[in-house]
Amino acid sequence: MDNYYMKKALELSKKAVGFVNPNPLVGAVIVKDNKIIGEGYHEHFGGPHAEVNAFKNATEDVEGATMYVTLEPCAHYGKTPPCAEAIVKNKIVKVIVGMIDPNPLVAGKGVEILRKAGIEVTTGIIENEIRKTNEIFIKYITTKKPFCIMKTAMTLDGKIATTTGDSKWISNEKSRAYVHELRNRVYGIMVGIGTVLNDNPELTTRREGKISTNPVRIIIDSTAKIPLDSKVLKCDEKTKTIIVTTKSASDTKICAIKQKGAEVIVTPSENKWVNLNYLMKVLGEMGIDSILLEGGSTLNYSALDEGIVDKVITFISPKIFGGTSGKTTVGGKGISLVKDSIMLQDTQVSRFDEDIMIEAYVKK
Amino acid sequence: MDNYYMKKALELSKKAVGFVNPNPLVGAVIVKDNKIIGEGYHEHFGGPHAEVNAFKNATEDVEGATMYVTLEPCAHYGKTPPCAEAIVKNKIVKVIVGMIDPNPLVAGKGVEILRKAGIEVTTGIIENEIRKTNEIFIKYITTKKPFCIMKTAMTLDGKIATTTGDSKWISNEKSRAYVHELRNRVYGIMVGIGTVLNDNPELTTRREGKISTNPVRIIIDSTAKIPLDSKVLKCDEKTKTIIVTTKSASDTKICAIKQKGAEVIVTPSENKWVNLNYLMKVLGEMGIDSILLEGGSTLNYSALDEGIVDKVITFISPKIFGGTSGKTTVGGKGISLVKDSIMLQDTQVSRFDEDIMIEAYVKK
Repeated sequence: MDNYYMKKALELSKKAVGFVNPNPLVGAVIVKDNKIIGEGYHEHFGGPHAEVNAFKNATEDVEGATMYVTLEPCAHYGKTPPCAEAIVKNKIVKVIVGMIDPNPLVAGKGVEILRKAGIEVTTGIIENEIRKTNEIFIKYITTKKPFCIMKTAMTLDGKIATTTGDSKWISNEKSRAYVHELRNRVYGIMVGIGTVLNDNPELTTRREGKISTNPVRIIIDSTAKIPLDSKVLKCDEKTKTIIVTTKSASDTKICAIKQKGAEVIVTPSENKWVNLNYLMKVLGEMGIDSILLEGGSTLNYSALDEGIVDKVITFISPKIFGGTSGKTTVGGKGISLVKDSIMLQDTQVSRFDEDIMIEAYVKK
Repeated sequence: MDNYYMKKALELSKKAVGFVNPNPLVGAVIVKDNKIIGEGYHEHFGGPHAEVNAFKNATEDVEGATMYVTLEPCAHYGKTPPCAEAIVKNKIVKVIVGMIDPNPLVAGKGVEILRKAGIEVTTGIIENEIRKTNEIFIKYITTKKPFCIMKTAMTLDGKIATTTGDSKWISNEKSRAYVHELRNRVYGIMVGIGTVLNDNPELTTRREGKISTNPVRIIIDSTAKIPLDSKVLKCDEKTKTIIVTTKSASDTKICAIKQKGAEVIVTPSENKWVNLNYLMKVLGEMGIDSILLEGGSTLNYSALDEGIVDKVITFISPKIFGGTSGKTTVGGKGISLVKDSIMLQDTQVSRFDEDIMIEAYVKK
């Protein structure tokens, strides 16, 4: 039954996808006499924690009950009082923890408070699933750099465009709808200036019948050549934009971009290119825990080469373009020898009708 | 129970993969009082049909029994007497047929003989599976041209080699072992001269601990520049080779190739290239019912463009090469507009550990 209740807590936690970054997704379930008497999850950034919401929603006296919570209860005074203390105060007798807090500074402290108060604690229930659900939080809290997902869509022969540059559409509607789920999941979306110049996209999240969060739009534009009437420069409280450039950009242009409401980050540069590692550090400091990289061939290679990519999501459409000069998902200089390949692992395959989605993690 | 016994018959038929081309794979099971009393399959080209073998192997009197046979019993005097008559003679009372003979000239005739003799006949049991198992035979018997499977192995970014040309190995051992199963399955294997010049492969079938059939090696070599010491020119009774060339080849070279024991086909040519459609007709007339195309980028595009490819099998390895100039599975001229894509359908995904295999059929 532990797995059953923990899965319930995990499902609850996922309701907040897109609304808690850079906080973790957490769900909690209170069980008494084999009955769920309280459910809660961390609903939005800065809001009450899952445990607090579960207590608030309890339909019976929680004294003597068991709590299932996906992440170790917190032990520190942050935006809310420590959950471990709330659990003690509420006279819970047993706590089942999905995973220990990945933050090395606080890991184990919540469990310690509980055990010292005489509460029975079990940890590591469906931990792999929970870790996967919180892969963004885990990377961010341990490195202070965003979890970067490289998303591509290609034909079965690896092309992202025909030899003449036609690319609409490669993947089907269901695949494209799922990309909007991904955009809703992450804090930022990153593209190269080429994408802005070619497609003038909005890079917002559109999910039919659902409230969505727009990702912060991050445009890699080393010489700041973005046209001021680009759609991504229409900014407001809910749709922010960061233009990432180098010293090659003129102060006048940077000023003009800022006047449109966008932020500008100037990174050090090698060969006039944006330094992506430096950028990740800056974005992490800004609280950006995750990025969906929807780059072109060149930016994708730079990102992989500089080691900033954590996960790769590739949609494969059952069609073939052919063409020696057709662009592929990853271009750039490329590696020379097979033994130096950028290796992926933990491959997972899903289907969107005839489209195939492959998810994999970059071996570090 | 019909499905159960028919699956049994289908499994039996598959034992002959690689040994009956260009004949169909056929299995038969005789059932009496809910017990299998006879099993047989078409074991090798020119050998007795499945029904005959099932009668031969019967452990009890077959009078009054039911026969399950994957393909409609034959009605014509060929290498063996008609099976439909043997079924009547053996006093079978009911025949369950997986699929009707796809050969339009004889389709339905076997069933007619059975019904006229008062035997109850049901057709179309697990027909999709049986059709898939005999996809080679179905194409060949209806068109007299080989069923062509384009096999490629690529990285997740669509590359078949690094920018420096390194390509060993892209897929893992299990994937490569499966390619030898494919080679055993087909009558011929086709590559371009580039592959012979670069890799000097044997193009034989190697399956650990199993007797295998080598495919006829078909080399597309429009100017006959194949070195006479190439491994594929070591021919014997079990490893045959066909060099396909055009009038650009010199008579002296053609003669030298023939002296090595290989056959030579000279096709008409456009722009000095081999005419693949003409070639398919000739190969079909030679009894070659199936080809595994293990081509490079250019030959693969020509084959798709000329419409000779029926099925695509792509192995995807969880690694990335990058590289704008890295070769992809399908090169050549390529299509210009997405709407003119070479479309695939009936996509199936399998795994060989971390490698992913995608099978799909070309929409005609």
